[in-house]
Amino acid sequence: MNAEIIAVGSELLLGQIVNTNARFLSQQLAGLGVDVYFHTVVGDNPDRLKKAIEIAEKRSQIIIFTGGLGPTKDDLTKETIARHLGKELAMDETALASIEDYFKRTNRVMTENNRKQALVLAGSHILPNDHGMAPGMVLEQGAHIYMLLPGPPKEMEPMFLHYGRKALSPDGDSNEKIVSRVLRFFGIGEAALETEILDLIDAQSNPTIAPLAGDGEVTLRLTAKHVDETVAGSMLDDVERKINQRVGEFLYGYDNTSLLNELTKMLKEKKLTITAAESLTGGMFQKEITSVSGASSVFNGGVVCYSNEVKHQVLRVSAETLDKFGAVSEQCALELAENAASIFGADIGISFTGVAGPDELEGKPVGTVYIGIAIKGMPTAVEKLVLAGTREANRVRAVKYGCYYLIKKLKESQNA
Amino acid sequence: MNAEIIAVGSELLLGQIVNTNARFLSQQLAGLGVDVYFHTVVGDNPDRLKKAIEIAEKRSQIIIFTGGLGPTKDDLTKETIARHLGKELAMDETALASIEDYFKRTNRVMTENNRKQALVLAGSHILPNDHGMAPGMVLEQGAHIYMLLPGPPKEMEPMFLHYGRKALSPDGDSNEKIVSRVLRFFGIGEAALETEILDLIDAQSNPTIAPLAGDGEVTLRLTAKHVDETVAGSMLDDVERKINQRVGEFLYGYDNTSLLNELTKMLKEKKLTITAAESLTGGMFQKEITSVSGASSVFNGGVVCYSNEVKHQVLRVSAETLDKFGAVSEQCALELAENAASIFGADIGISFTGVAGPDELEGKPVGTVYIGIAIKGMPTAVEKLVLAGTREANRVRAVKYGCYYLIKKLKESQNA
Repeated sequence: MNAEIIAVGSELLLGQIVNTNARFLSQQLAGLGVDVYFHTVVGDNPDRLKKAIEIAEKRSQIIIFTGGLGPTKDDLTKETIARHLGKELAMDETALASIEDYFKRTNRVMTENNRKQALVLAGSHILPNDHGMAPGMVLEQGAHIYMLLPGPPKEMEPMFLHYGRKALSPDGDSNEKIVSRVLRFFGIGEAALETEILDLIDAQSNPTIAPLAGDGEVTLRLTAKHVDETVAGSMLDDVERKINQRVGEFLYGYDNTSLLNELTKMLKEKKLTITAAESLTGGMFQKEITSVSGASSVFNGGVVCYSNEVKHQVLRVSAETLDKFGAVSEQCALELAENAASIFGADIGISFTGVAGPDELEGKPVGTVYIGIAIKGMPTAVEKLVLAGTREANRVRAVKYGCYYLIKKLKESQNA
Repeated sequence: MNAEIIAVGSELLLGQIVNTNARFLSQQLAGLGVDVYFHTVVGDNPDRLKKAIEIAEKRSQIIIFTGGLGPTKDDLTKETIARHLGKELAMDETALASIEDYFKRTNRVMTENNRKQALVLAGSHILPNDHGMAPGMVLEQGAHIYMLLPGPPKEMEPMFLHYGRKALSPDGDSNEKIVSRVLRFFGIGEAALETEILDLIDAQSNPTIAPLAGDGEVTLRLTAKHVDETVAGSMLDDVERKINQRVGEFLYGYDNTSLLNELTKMLKEKKLTITAAESLTGGMFQKEITSVSGASSVFNGGVVCYSNEVKHQVLRVSAETLDKFGAVSEQCALELAENAASIFGADIGISFTGVAGPDELEGKPVGTVYIGIAIKGMPTAVEKLVLAGTREANRVRAVKYGCYYLIKKLKESQNA
């Protein structure tokens, strides 16, 4: 089985929003053993949408539409598909009742154009919308399955997970399954990594090995196909073992994890608490660590110390250090990390001070970053970075390096 | 002139990354007066890429490719285009020298596969890559312009801005220009807003009015076409005036601004400094305010007070308040905002305390948020929210409401 995802919306073609729906659906379809060969984006224009449907019908079995089911004038997806397939639109009373109920629950007034959202393709299977108003639809006709989903991700994603998946799952399990695993590396470049494992990439067609770089990280996506998912999993294990013999020292995690997730997991296991003193990163490390529910077992709080006054008065960095070495210095990073740990009563203090850009600071060039790491019972370490990105990239990169160094230190202390 | 953007990369079809390049290029092309009618995503597969090119040639004048110019085995874009157009690939010595220089500067070892990146389509105009290795190319052949750009956004975006735009700009100015303006609203829903202005939307075809909702905000994109950009601008002014007579009270800004940007601008104008005490938002407000260069004129620092200990010991919230009312309370928000302002010597203290989810806290339901706003010389205000999103959506929404309330208060004080 193969599929094409057609996103409908002029806002995508004008660059107002990004097509995250195609990403979500692609991940889901891979898990169902469905190959996605194309994504298409087309505007709120019935003629061009009709042509896109005709092209998709020639090359894809499953055609999934996102967007254009809303209440406003430019929402035309189901009208265009109905005309193209020679189907009527009919009022779905369940969907209408659910829309009316939605307005009652959220205490808002229902306007007339909201009724339009309850019109569905005659003969289609309805996918309820538990997080919004427009219902989804699935229709089998000829050699094709047409699935219509709403555009807002917070409606589309749960609808697909709870109702859409089932409508696409094969009846038996005779179909080939696609199993994917992403290996995540930090501290090695894409070409260097590929050079180390080029013979493996060349020798393999199942599983395939696909490298990808971004945000200072490199990932390898391993993808195996087999009718038996367990066998596909063992095929991935085999190739992963070979890869790790070459570049395993840079591997830090799998799939959708992040350096910060891995760090948090490690802190929880070791029952350690952490605090942060953030200058150039402005709270980014702490925002990330609190983005996961349950962060309170490892994190009580910390400080954003943007100015020298806050570094001195709140975090007690000595006036001598600031005068003699400046805020962007090894000495300042060290005092920030140690003092933060002591003030917040944490086992670990991490500090970030540096020059995010675009202008230099204290005569130090853009991209200069010092990261202080004070772990109870160990000598405080300070790492220096020289980054080459934009202001925001340097901030993101600094947080990642902070996590990377801290994970390394915690592993060392474990092995010592 | 119209264009199609073809992104090449199996990682997009597997859902490993999102096609942000299509968004960036769409925005840029709109500014150049080029209509974008389609986005296509195709995998690292020469046959399917060739078919996608053939379809694009039938419906689009400019075809822009992103991705597949890298050093690895699965990077096949220029090879496939060369075969399709009957062109040779030739080593570009300038590009090769630039790649060698890149490795010297970043102190890394150049591997053999990196040389492949300096191969270019014979007869094409080269777009230098100032932030990476693979050069871009522009080739005019028959009725089409083919532009090849690298996949990583940090290479592609500056390449397009500095070199790609010029290659596409019309020689004269006889072409119709598209001028767009986005009006940003907060505090009103999409259908409610559309109902207020439905007659305007129906009556207009140039400019068009397109509503879009997301993240608690609603935007209206106004788009006018005219050979004279100044006239197009006046057409937008006219329709904006009509819209503002109906819903102007909810308008907070234009185009790519954000509530936080508007707040920062206002603080700079009024020469006011701000600090924050963040519990559920975990540093998100401070991270955002420091994402803009020059934040130091309005922000010295603040605290992430995730635990009650930090609220009490660092931010001096009284034990009585925490015992009697809890951390998620009007009283706690008030003390946090006032004490943060006093400790950090700021004109304004803002506090965020609440239940992000997924579990309730102190018997208060998920989504309960208190925002304290202490402005020097004004009585401290506390706003209560009841949000209905996921953990991360509630955090984002809380920060937006904080900015929205503070902007309102500052406007009130100005008018008082």
